[in-house]
Amino acid sequence: MSNPELPEAGRKYYLEDLTVGQKFVSGTYLVDEVQIKQFATQFDPQPFHLDAEAAKDSFFHGLVASGWHTASITMRLLVESGLPLAGGLIGAGAELSWPTPTRPGSILQVESEILEIRTSRSRPDRGIATVRSETHDQFGEVKQIFTGKIIVFRTP
Amino acid sequence: MSNPELPEAGRKYYLEDLTVGQKFVSGTYLVDEVQIKQFATQFDPQPFHLDAEAAKDSFFHGLVASGWHTASITMRLLVESGLPLAGGLIGAGAELSWPTPTRPGSILQVESEILEIRTSRSRPDRGIATVRSETHDQFGEVKQIFTGKIIVFRTP
Repeated sequence: MSNPELPEAGRKYYLEDLTVGQKFVSGTYLVDEVQIKQFATQFDPQPFHLDAEAAKDSFFHGLVASGWHTASITMRLLVESGLPLAGGLIGAGAELSWPTPTRPGSILQVESEILEIRTSRSRPDRGIATVRSETHDQFGEVKQIFTGKIIVFRTP
Repeated sequence: MSNPELPEAGRKYYLEDLTVGQKFVSGTYLVDEVQIKQFATQFDPQPFHLDAEAAKDSFFHGLVASGWHTASITMRLLVESGLPLAGGLIGAGAELSWPTPTRPGSILQVESEILEIRTSRSRPDRGIATVRSETHDQFGEVKQIFTGKIIVFRTP
């Protein structure tokens, strides 16, 4: 199996298919100014996410996406292609950091690595995988590092 | 100052206005099925977030909001009323957990507490506040615990 891999189309991974060090890569997602403003209007209405002119004089020196927008797009990429787990992506918790902000024109892609796999003692049908997902743009600039604990099911 | 407090209307807090243990409480936000499906369609297209019927047989036994939707609504509540920091809410990183899922009809509210304040050595005009924000519903059930590191500016 190549590493990082583009998962075989339609293949879903169960607990016993995962190994520590295994890597996955998602498709891509182009972020534009309209999306950034739309998300911010709904969920993060601050000038540096809403108004390119006002954003020039801000901390970010220009319009940037909400960190929660970057996180949400990362989830979309993981669900659609980046982390094809059987039973879906169900997270119990997460650590997030945003080393640089997503800007209009950013093309996001997520590379994930399985860091740890623990089987549940009380629920033998499942386990918890710790996954580190790095979201970068087309220039390799890291926009988000997300380390999540995800519930993974054993083959029924 | 009462604790937790509803901040005086329009008051914005600078670094030197914050104290460890200080608490803030946000307004409320009613989550409905339409919003849950809309967010999921855009960012987390999984059956248990999209289809009430399919969700019945899922891990969650019914339709639930994406954790990223709960996180985004929490941000909205913090920006609008829950954490009125001068210069806005700019996060460097975060830890998240979702003890129970948000469901249609959940009325969310966020209570925040300042856990730690560190002034920057290299940038004397700012510091980092560690804030713990707990998002609960109208029954007091905790939906999300978010501990974030937020940039706070000193009075200019």
